Amino acid sequence: MRETVGWGVDGEAAVLRRLRLERRDLRPDDIAIRVDYCGVCHTDVHSLDAHAGGLLVPGHEFTGVVTEAGSEVTRFAAGDPVAVGNIVDSCGECVMCEAGQENFCREFPTLTYGGTDRRDGSTTAGAYAREYVVRERFAYRLPAGLDPAGAAPLLCAGITVWEPLHSLGVGPGTRVAVAGLGGLGHLAVKFAVALGAGTTVISRSAGKAEDARKLGARDVVVSTDPDQLAAARDRFDVVVDTISAPHDLGPYLGLVAMDGTLSQVGHLGPVTVRTMDLLVGRKKLTSAGSGGVPATAAMLAFCAEHGVTADVEVLPSARVNEAFDRLRRNDVRYRFVLDLADLARVTTPA
Amino acid sequence: MRETVGWGVDGEAAVLRRLRLERRDLRPDDIAIRVDYCGVCHTDVHSLDAHAGGLLVPGHEFTGVVTEAGSEVTRFAAGDPVAVGNIVDSCGECVMCEAGQENFCREFPTLTYGGTDRRDGSTTAGAYAREYVVRERFAYRLPAGLDPAGAAPLLCAGITVWEPLHSLGVGPGTRVAVAGLGGLGHLAVKFAVALGAGTTVISRSAGKAEDARKLGARDVVVSTDPDQLAAARDRFDVVVDTISAPHDLGPYLGLVAMDGTLSQVGHLGPVTVRTMDLLVGRKKLTSAGSGGVPATAAMLAFCAEHGVTADVEVLPSARVNEAFDRLRRNDVRYRFVLDLADLARVTTPA
Repeated sequence: MRETVGWGVDGEAAVLRRLRLERRDLRPDDIAIRVDYCGVCHTDVHSLDAHAGGLLVPGHEFTGVVTEAGSEVTRFAAGDPVAVGNIVDSCGECVMCEAGQENFCREFPTLTYGGTDRRDGSTTAGAYAREYVVRERFAYRLPAGLDPAGAAPLLCAGITVWEPLHSLGVGPGTRVAVAGLGGLGHLAVKFAVALGAGTTVISRSAGKAEDARKLGARDVVVSTDPDQLAAARDRFDVVVDTISAPHDLGPYLGLVAMDGTLSQVGHLGPVTVRTMDLLVGRKKLTSAGSGGVPATAAMLAFCAEHGVTADVEVLPSARVNEAFDRLRRNDVRYRFVLDLADLARVTTPA
Repeated sequence: MRETVGWGVDGEAAVLRRLRLERRDLRPDDIAIRVDYCGVCHTDVHSLDAHAGGLLVPGHEFTGVVTEAGSEVTRFAAGDPVAVGNIVDSCGECVMCEAGQENFCREFPTLTYGGTDRRDGSTTAGAYAREYVVRERFAYRLPAGLDPAGAAPLLCAGITVWEPLHSLGVGPGTRVAVAGLGGLGHLAVKFAVALGAGTTVISRSAGKAEDARKLGARDVVVSTDPDQLAAARDRFDVVVDTISAPHDLGPYLGLVAMDGTLSQVGHLGPVTVRTMDLLVGRKKLTSAGSGGVPATAAMLAFCAEHGVTADVEVLPSARVNEAFDRLRRNDVRYRFVLDLADLARVTTPA
């Protein structure tokens, strides 16, 4: 086994602590990555809050540099800049895997942390750590020109909003609205704008109007203003709803044009919908999460071409608990990214 | 005013009674119709059950013959066979009306019964009656060759399932499943088959397999058999869910293929959906109900070309309460149609 250090909990705990971690010795198709930057996702906070025991090391959107490659690795060599998302393996044989939708693997994909390794049955530990070991198939070359800190969130937040925009055919002429302007939402705006769509931000507060326009949005609809909502009725071909708290979908479905689609990607619990909100205008409700290998690679190529990265606040990884606290209050524009370079310097716990 | 007779309640009542009814004198763009056949829709039963007072005359899918035409009527003359559905007027000016989607009229369409007439403010009374008066714009020529009894249910049940099949592009090569084999479901099967789609019926009981195949379905999936459900997972591009009782959509979403759509048309109350049932496979949930004037006309032309009518049990209109009782038990294959010719003969109530 290989040794590294990271931030996690072993047993029950409310905050993350520095831990010594083991990584597996490289299999023939593995690469070892020195993790430089790892984004802080809402899922990481939820995982800690729900953690009931055992080892938890969060982190599933990261960039770094290959330090070592297994004997059969063909796509990477030491020194290559790479990126990894929230899926690190899949069955490879089902119709979904064969279609390049490993995120929908019928045997369930192996998650980057908290998943079960398909070969040795161990529980995966995430990338709030100085090293990660992964099958080369689930690593992506980080395109030149993409800032590695700003690129890290593309691998989870980015692909999650890229998927609906891409699969729904968003492009020039499409009218897109993005509800919620956080980690997912701000990337959805950047993507929609770069895809050529007229893009509007739906926000609870008028205070985000300036930010929305800086991101390229043409317009802002304040969702707490009934007049603005009414004026925007039936106006958008695609509404990407990135709001992470449970909420009534009715007002957002009301903004969807006839035959248009609301893709809810922020809140993944059950939702109750009034059928009439779908019936009138034949509107569609869908969702998306993560993406397959081909879509993730295509998104990274698009980001390189259009200069799209996340707007991030980079913190030394030792401040991870501060990042969690602030993320719980949505106090970030728009994504925290941990800089793992400090891990060699912080004191080892007793 | 014009006098006619029909079946309804005036005040509170559990059963329909024969009533003398008034129809408006013809406006310049009105036609008077001798109603020959009127289908019995679930909505009619719900309307009676929910009726709290005042006049209720159900009936919103009917065929008959024009008996008189207003001075400005251009499309119809006395003697023409016609059909009318559940919408008899709309604002005519909103974006939906201009798009030929009068069923989504922003000012709400005028319903055939229980609606409010846009010109005189009266409450509309339905077609369980010997005569109906309607704006010519909302009447359709009944194509030659279509049995007028079997055609009546096309105007509500038919258009409701035609809409999702048509708007979702169902045709040769599409894999369609129809859940529930009642008034809506059996027409959805006939349409899907006539459109060239491979069509499967999803039913709770294996007993409907023979009926389903007679309607043209290739296959039947028994929804109470977990093995059959599992084998049909992710198999259909379009699932039309015509089940009228509240039910868990999860098993039906499970049958939808990646990027496919479940259109729920049978139950119009609120539904709760697990977001993951939509997320995995980017599946879409939608609904449909009724249709606009152009779509209704197109459906009737399609029915004439393909010889599609409803399978009906025709009852003399005096047996309407028996039809309601049996419909409450789903004891009909597949739609009751009232023959209004008996209305001249039945005894007038005291």
